[in-house]
Amino acid sequence: METVIILGGDGFCGWPTALHLSDIGYNVVIVDNLSRRKIDIDLGTGSLTPIQPIDVRLQAWRDVSGRRIRFEHLTVGDDYASLLDVIRRERPRAIVHFAEQRAAPYSMKGARERRYTVRNNLNGTHDVLAAIIESGLDVHLVHLGTMGVYGYGTAGMTIPEGYLPVKVETPAGEQQIEVLYPAHPGSVYHMTKAQDALFFWYYNRNYASRITDLHQGIVWGTQTVQTSRDPRLINRFDYDGDYGTVLNRFLMQAAIDYPLTVHGTGGQTRAFIHIQDTVRCIELAIANPPEKGERVAIMNQMTETHRLIDLARMVSAMTGVDYQHVPNPRVEAAENDLNVCNASFLRLGLKPTFLREGLAAEVAEIARRYADRCDRSKIPCVSQWQKAKTEARSDGRATPTLMLVNTDDAVPMPIAM
Amino acid sequence: METVIILGGDGFCGWPTALHLSDIGYNVVIVDNLSRRKIDIDLGTGSLTPIQPIDVRLQAWRDVSGRRIRFEHLTVGDDYASLLDVIRRERPRAIVHFAEQRAAPYSMKGARERRYTVRNNLNGTHDVLAAIIESGLDVHLVHLGTMGVYGYGTAGMTIPEGYLPVKVETPAGEQQIEVLYPAHPGSVYHMTKAQDALFFWYYNRNYASRITDLHQGIVWGTQTVQTSRDPRLINRFDYDGDYGTVLNRFLMQAAIDYPLTVHGTGGQTRAFIHIQDTVRCIELAIANPPEKGERVAIMNQMTETHRLIDLARMVSAMTGVDYQHVPNPRVEAAENDLNVCNASFLRLGLKPTFLREGLAAEVAEIARRYADRCDRSKIPCVSQWQKAKTEARSDGRATPTLMLVNTDDAVPMPIAM
Repeated sequence: METVIILGGDGFCGWPTALHLSDIGYNVVIVDNLSRRKIDIDLGTGSLTPIQPIDVRLQAWRDVSGRRIRFEHLTVGDDYASLLDVIRRERPRAIVHFAEQRAAPYSMKGARERRYTVRNNLNGTHDVLAAIIESGLDVHLVHLGTMGVYGYGTAGMTIPEGYLPVKVETPAGEQQIEVLYPAHPGSVYHMTKAQDALFFWYYNRNYASRITDLHQGIVWGTQTVQTSRDPRLINRFDYDGDYGTVLNRFLMQAAIDYPLTVHGTGGQTRAFIHIQDTVRCIELAIANPPEKGERVAIMNQMTETHRLIDLARMVSAMTGVDYQHVPNPRVEAAENDLNVCNASFLRLGLKPTFLREGLAAEVAEIARRYADRCDRSKIPCVSQWQKAKTEARSDGRATPTLMLVNTDDAVPMPIAM
Repeated sequence: METVIILGGDGFCGWPTALHLSDIGYNVVIVDNLSRRKIDIDLGTGSLTPIQPIDVRLQAWRDVSGRRIRFEHLTVGDDYASLLDVIRRERPRAIVHFAEQRAAPYSMKGARERRYTVRNNLNGTHDVLAAIIESGLDVHLVHLGTMGVYGYGTAGMTIPEGYLPVKVETPAGEQQIEVLYPAHPGSVYHMTKAQDALFFWYYNRNYASRITDLHQGIVWGTQTVQTSRDPRLINRFDYDGDYGTVLNRFLMQAAIDYPLTVHGTGGQTRAFIHIQDTVRCIELAIANPPEKGERVAIMNQMTETHRLIDLARMVSAMTGVDYQHVPNPRVEAAENDLNVCNASFLRLGLKPTFLREGLAAEVAEIARRYADRCDRSKIPCVSQWQKAKTEARSDGRATPTLMLVNTDDAVPMPIAM
């Protein structure tokens, strides 16, 4: 039985991934320091759904499946020796790396959160790479990145999977090369993911490390086949202004009969993927590692794009709760196209779950069902971005001619309630 | 009197910069944790020149100049609160950031040194940016980067100053944009500098931080006008396999009558700058900050390029010590062009000191004079890079068509002695 280590295996994506991989036959080891739960304590908030302590979760999984998932309580990026020990002992086929602070608004709250996000994410990712090299094992690293590192969308151009063909002028004439898609992060959180890409580039190049970097869209949905098998296995649902996504907040507003707040025209377009498809993508990524010596595999992990106004209309139609347009507090394009290539996962066999089919279950089984657990005061985003300075350029130099599109997967639509 | 804080002001570039800026009238505050001296202890090596403790240095400067340079002993990237306090108290015009681990071979010794380099450099750079923002002051950050982040030289193409114009295909036709020059780091050290560029990009964009990033070539020379004024002010000269550059090692080999070892044909070309020009460039960068809202200013801080064989011949002619060709232990182009744009500093008034004029002083006043302090056993580089995997690509995907050129400023030419 092959082993997979899941860093951050207690979190929103990590937990259902752990169950899914256990279910299909991997020996799963979760490494986590429970930091996501502790951040809830700091923020005075919590999952809408009643998630259980990790030991209860693991026992429940044993009860319903007969399978054991082990748990190592350690901080990736801090306790390097223990991380190395786990890797040496477990000799995993793959390490799935979710152990990063993943909320853009949280990363923008203040110096403390900016610094925490940078340290946690960068020291963590590098420790994983260093430990894999030091172990001497040929471990495939599967990292959860974000669509948010792409920044230039594109006058209709389809966002490729990680690498952009460009032409450069040389004395010998124009040459075509491929470059890492120029990063255009929209928050400190996204910045760390762009910096992760350089870790991967270098370790892959110098040590021939096998690495898959998954550029994920906004994950929606709460439950998977496995988390539904026992109430003790239920997954998190974040609705607070820091960790909740725009869709979750529409759902919560509907559940408490507050008109959904659409910023500006709602013509902003974002990429989405259901949590069930996320865990399936991780399975496919593990099963299809890059060849030794092959460059970093970058795949776009999203299945559909929607304009925010269409999301609001969808939720409104399902719930009977109206929506309203409010001024957009963010500096961003009022409307944007978003065309994304996700050919890799479709080719590997992913069958997407689309929002139009799955959203009703979220409304009924999560948002309405647990609405009494909602603390309304936590829904608005209180983090402040500074204004982007694109319009304020005073240097007279050329600005990029491609349209700037925010493809963040975690950037909030602040809610004025 | 305007204040400049120099992070890493006790080091090879930082110390002469502190003296130079003090000399021309700035109020200078050095922030340093003396880590460079402590690494010498770990490596069992030391500066060829007899550098004095920081308190002796500062007293000597007071004695000869009448000026006071203050010293704050703190670790940038660790003691954030103290760093913020210093910035708030001093209200500097500029912060010059040398506080990074700057030797590529050191960064490749093992997991400990890789991790140290990543933590020190990334946490440090981010703490500086976060502290500037938290201080609320409009402080110009001048960062010492490296020519080594450029990777694709160029079939004769001139390396621009930080930004590369490229053409991309869109449905509306080909469009020209400018991107950060695609990073192509050759060591963990260089990787952190490429990651620094993303810190700068983001903080500049989101907070309109004023930032100048100097992509420096190999710094040669030891003394400046100021460090020559008193023996107690003497600057470091590193000749060991980790911190010494190829030129310093040629000088040491000559001083101990060992034939200079040229790897391969010696047709590898590198960029250089004299330490006297370095401190002048810092002065010019401080005097010419980007406008508020202007993008990160990236300037190439180098004055000339040389093939290694020509350096060996120059040193040989000056010293009468022969050179020899030995097999090149590194995977790199045997010969390369290197054309670098350094128009910004020339436009600002830099008058370069060229190797051909200044090298004799190094031979006589440093290498020969202190040769008895040299520990021959420390000259070879013992750090091992893995082979770059460019040739081993098995994925069949397009490889960059531009010639790969190593423009490292600190990558050693390992010496087989």
